[in-house]
Amino acid sequence: MIIILKDKHSKEQIDELYQELQQYDVDIKPIEGTQTTIWGLIGDVTQIDVSRIHSKEVVYDIKRVSEPYKAANRKFHPDDTIVEVMNEKIGGEHFKVIAGPCSIETEEQVIEVAKAVKKSGAKFLRGGAFKPRTSPYAFQGLHAEGIKLLLKAQKITGLPIVTEIMSLAHLDLFADVDIIQVGARNMQNFELLKELGHSKKPILLKRGLANTLEEFLMSAEYIMSGGNENVILCERGIRTFETMTRNTLDLSAVPLLKHYSHLPVVVDPSHATGIPWLVEPLSQAAIAAGADGLMIEVHNNPKKALCDGAQSLTPTQFDEVMKKITAQAQFCNKTL
Amino acid sequence: MIIILKDKHSKEQIDELYQELQQYDVDIKPIEGTQTTIWGLIGDVTQIDVSRIHSKEVVYDIKRVSEPYKAANRKFHPDDTIVEVMNEKIGGEHFKVIAGPCSIETEEQVIEVAKAVKKSGAKFLRGGAFKPRTSPYAFQGLHAEGIKLLLKAQKITGLPIVTEIMSLAHLDLFADVDIIQVGARNMQNFELLKELGHSKKPILLKRGLANTLEEFLMSAEYIMSGGNENVILCERGIRTFETMTRNTLDLSAVPLLKHYSHLPVVVDPSHATGIPWLVEPLSQAAIAAGADGLMIEVHNNPKKALCDGAQSLTPTQFDEVMKKITAQAQFCNKTL
Amino acid sequence: MIIILKDKHSKEQIDELYQELQQYDVDIKPIEGTQTTIWGLIGDVTQIDVSRIHSKEVVYDIKRVSEPYKAANRKFHPDDTIVEVMNEKIGGEHFKVIAGPCSIETEEQVIEVAKAVKKSGAKFLRGGAFKPRTSPYAFQGLHAEGIKLLLKAQKITGLPIVTEIMSLAHLDLFADVDIIQVGARNMQNFELLKELGHSKKPILLKRGLANTLEEFLMSAEYIMSGGNENVILCERGIRTFETMTRNTLDLSAVPLLKHYSHLPVVVDPSHATGIPWLVEPLSQAAIAAGADGLMIEVHNNPKKALCDGAQSLTPTQFDEVMKKITAQAQFCNKTL
Amino acid sequence: MIIILKDKHSKEQIDELYQELQQYDVDIKPIEGTQTTIWGLIGDVTQIDVSRIHSKEVVYDIKRVSEPYKAANRKFHPDDTIVEVMNEKIGGEHFKVIAGPCSIETEEQVIEVAKAVKKSGAKFLRGGAFKPRTSPYAFQGLHAEGIKLLLKAQKITGLPIVTEIMSLAHLDLFADVDIIQVGARNMQNFELLKELGHSKKPILLKRGLANTLEEFLMSAEYIMSGGNENVILCERGIRTFETMTRNTLDLSAVPLLKHYSHLPVVVDPSHATGIPWLVEPLSQAAIAAGADGLMIEVHNNPKKALCDGAQSLTPTQFDEVMKKITAQAQFCNKTL
Repeated sequence: MIIILKDKHSKEQIDELYQELQQYDVDIKPIEGTQTTIWGLIGDVTQIDVSRIHSKEVVYDIKRVSEPYKAANRKFHPDDTIVEVMNEKIGGEHFKVIAGPCSIETEEQVIEVAKAVKKSGAKFLRGGAFKPRTSPYAFQGLHAEGIKLLLKAQKITGLPIVTEIMSLAHLDLFADVDIIQVGARNMQNFELLKELGHSKKPILLKRGLANTLEEFLMSAEYIMSGGNENVILCERGIRTFETMTRNTLDLSAVPLLKHYSHLPVVVDPSHATGIPWLVEPLSQAAIAAGADGLMIEVHNNPKKALCDGAQSLTPTQFDEVMKKITAQAQFCNKTL
Repeated sequence: MIIILKDKHSKEQIDELYQELQQYDVDIKPIEGTQTTIWGLIGDVTQIDVSRIHSKEVVYDIKRVSEPYKAANRKFHPDDTIVEVMNEKIGGEHFKVIAGPCSIETEEQVIEVAKAVKKSGAKFLRGGAFKPRTSPYAFQGLHAEGIKLLLKAQKITGLPIVTEIMSLAHLDLFADVDIIQVGARNMQNFELLKELGHSKKPILLKRGLANTLEEFLMSAEYIMSGGNENVILCERGIRTFETMTRNTLDLSAVPLLKHYSHLPVVVDPSHATGIPWLVEPLSQAAIAAGADGLMIEVHNNPKKALCDGAQSLTPTQFDEVMKKITAQAQFCNKTL
Repeated sequence: MIIILKDKHSKEQIDELYQELQQYDVDIKPIEGTQTTIWGLIGDVTQIDVSRIHSKEVVYDIKRVSEPYKAANRKFHPDDTIVEVMNEKIGGEHFKVIAGPCSIETEEQVIEVAKAVKKSGAKFLRGGAFKPRTSPYAFQGLHAEGIKLLLKAQKITGLPIVTEIMSLAHLDLFADVDIIQVGARNMQNFELLKELGHSKKPILLKRGLANTLEEFLMSAEYIMSGGNENVILCERGIRTFETMTRNTLDLSAVPLLKHYSHLPVVVDPSHATGIPWLVEPLSQAAIAAGADGLMIEVHNNPKKALCDGAQSLTPTQFDEVMKKITAQAQFCNKTL
Repeated sequence: MIIILKDKHSKEQIDELYQELQQYDVDIKPIEGTQTTIWGLIGDVTQIDVSRIHSKEVVYDIKRVSEPYKAANRKFHPDDTIVEVMNEKIGGEHFKVIAGPCSIETEEQVIEVAKAVKKSGAKFLRGGAFKPRTSPYAFQGLHAEGIKLLLKAQKITGLPIVTEIMSLAHLDLFADVDIIQVGARNMQNFELLKELGHSKKPILLKRGLANTLEEFLMSAEYIMSGGNENVILCERGIRTFETMTRNTLDLSAVPLLKHYSHLPVVVDPSHATGIPWLVEPLSQAAIAAGADGLMIEVHNNPKKALCDGAQSLTPTQFDEVMKKITAQAQFCNKTL
């Protein structure tokens, strides 16, 4: 860590900063320049509260030299984390497709879609029981009933299920869910992350619409520092000025997250773009960029979907896309 | 609402869309073009689930003509909403300053700051007991103890208090809090918003870092549609590419929110910029743009602040800024 | 085109708008709603100056239904455009790699790199003689001398060359250049685009840092409407809040541009990310997304590069990357 | 300047970096950490080509400690620059309003508007003869004829004129123009900036849609390093995800630019928002934030404007706005 001091400072200010830093287990190496004085801090700087040091009058700026996350950092955990649920693995050489409807609507719908996506090669079933909607007047999901239907589909098809939690108050309902999803809008709902850190269940954490990759890894760190190391990261597009797609899919995130972290990374092209015919090319691209999995919306009748129907594939379309996905994943030496 | 149909469509697809729309209380007026067919929908279109219609194969695009929010809409509530707490009013001609430390640290600190900001003219005391921090290793706030200290300051100074809620699980602790703040990261924590809609307490809702003004008003609508109409909107900067400030303060938001909505709008220049010497010019600018209040961080000893000290003003600096704020607000015919 | 009228309007305002529209060859179909009146315009609306109509007092909003570009539009030109230079084709099934140094520094450098990239399979040589640099104090390129060196390399290796123009004043120097590049910062330098529209040379047009895909296609339209239809589009990253990469590569742009336009689309992963080890995964991803080519920075001695050395590959690294690129392109049924 | 070395490095790499740095007039102060080695460079680091150093294999990162601009830097020029044209001053305590139509259309129009804005208190006349338009099919301006009409208005009213240059090829036409405007899309048209650096005329430089304040000041530096120190900076909104306004006006830019630079700063609320009724509140806000001037679009008949009519004020509206602007500027102790 490097502390850059202000041009003009009194001896008292310097002493005060020095004393403050003494409480940490670090060595201070000053460099006196013609215009600027810099202090290099050597040792375990992860304990230092940067904003506290920053607030000292004498401090002009602070530059970190190392990453602020530990549990999620590949430096301290070089091997790929492989998340395993009901004998299905994601991470390392294991590539998986998670598919299903945006929201669960009826028993018939979820079971029909579950059977279809399983047949096409998906290994996980997704479906929303709690739906974050911009408008309070839009369909909000079937809630407990939705999870019940999802569990029925899990039983019938044997597919492990992934579904989104929106409040700690609902945690009990997720007891038999296989992977709990934290949505983009809750990526920095820190109280939720902390609680999920005490769970044993794998967490699929979606990147927030306006969050940097470092913040994304810090949110994973919230969960991991609580003891739960089964975190799957999901890139789902960020908010930019471009209006042709719902969000801008940031595929650089895939190799970057895999470089700095050991966690599996999946990509959601359906939500990123909101356009069904973009799912195929961007799925291919995500695999080529090194993704460990994909999350794709499939609805047996997109025309009647209660939520995000416009971006869903039909089972027939999904089956076509899966053939291409399978070929590309095999080309990249992945096991499906 | 306008529905634009695809160039090529079958009679069956048209019939299906027609039947779907029949269930709503709207008239359908088609226009046949050389290339495009458009249906204009006349009547109460607020009940129509746009994404459901959008998912019909025959639909190319849908354009809304009117705003999707009702309770927050000035069209249906032309008079300014004035939020009143302990005889202090915000909104209409009533301009108020909310000041205090980012986080509550000690009894001495909060009471000293509370007395100081009251003396300088602030009418509300802010202070965080639950702190949303990017890193799990940073100070997270004093929690219940913090609220207790804040209530002590409220008793001693008579200032109504504003503090942030981060989870529904903590709601009981906020029983004696005067205004509950929903932070930027929770602006789309819809379960929290719904619950606060059943509360009687005024809610200070901060704009999310990547949320449009329409989404901001829709989040206010979540609270208001639950029955709680005491919502104060707070512009606190959005995330852009500019790195010189922590966020980019969007002052156009002030006249726009006041045009489309009747709710009071306050501005937080401290969080928006992260730079203490920008608080004064941007406070002046916010008032000139029509803001109903300001939220400013003040710490008795910013150099020792446990959180965001770098952006806090000292009580002495705040006193200077308040003189300018007062003059500008009076110039704008506001009552402080 | 749909014109939405204001709720309240006088007969005179309506008449004025009607007369204004009469000068165009369009039919006007009004729909009267309970709250809103809408006019649908049928016919050739491309001649209508939208901002002029928008400025009428009675107009609330205007929605376009069709794209504003014609020459670049796939609707009116369904077949892929294939740009051919010195027997090398880009577009359709023809996939090409353009490689070379960011800036031309010495004869030795450019010839060494040219030979190396040719050997590895690149079919075009890139190199900057005019360099757009943020700082006036940074190396600005060798100018005329740089182009001379590039032409020498062209002669020796037989590779067609691509180099950037920064001002019309230099156009004469580009007489023997094979493809003229318009950089991101000049994407909306409309005077330059117009002039290049009168040229016969292929233009490689880079997307601006803050430009939408529609604006990108409109800039291509500037060139094409002048008569030059040999435009190659280049996605090179957009500016967002993310700081880990120099820009955010928007790979959705590839299938979208190819859907709405018939022009070839290449991707520049070097400038998009600024990180050499991201070039390989993002090149693979770009091909999988459907790109017609790649533009990659290669320097014989990146450590001594006068410009952007940090993001360049060495010839050895490039050779490795080319093996993967070739395999992926063949997998996607492309001809190299 | 601080150079952070990679964890693992050979003696040779260190030697090479050392030798490279020897050519500059700087002292090197190394700090050896447990994990990281840092070199602090002391002396005149402005000559160092950062990208060149960054490309050394051994370099992990480089952090600048001081600003990269000199001529524009307030540190080396503490007094406000005051730009003076035909006895009218901008900067320091001198506040000025520049007003006029977006584009010049007819003699009658420009003279009518010029007289009107002069009467209301504007001291400069703006008007576009060369118009940057997204579409090649939109009105592009009257070019030479437009400048002639503008000069006529200058003669009749005595108002100095401001008009945009889009290409060096047109420079001769600007011989009698008082202030040359460089538009947002040309902020990084470096060849244009260099040439204007050799001019004696004041330059009004608009911030690019996606440019940071540092880049903005570097573009001013391009002009100033050529010898022309009469640069006026203009904040006109940046591109963000918000769609309610055309751009997002960044008023923090005003105090920041005035803090880091000595150049005058004006604000263009018309282009920033595209909404005429926002001009008044944002003009007030800009003055309160410390702006030295405003640039406002006024059209005698916005309904018939050939360009951007929708955002123009009528002379009557402008007269009302000027009363408020005058009062606010006087309140801020500015001389109009």
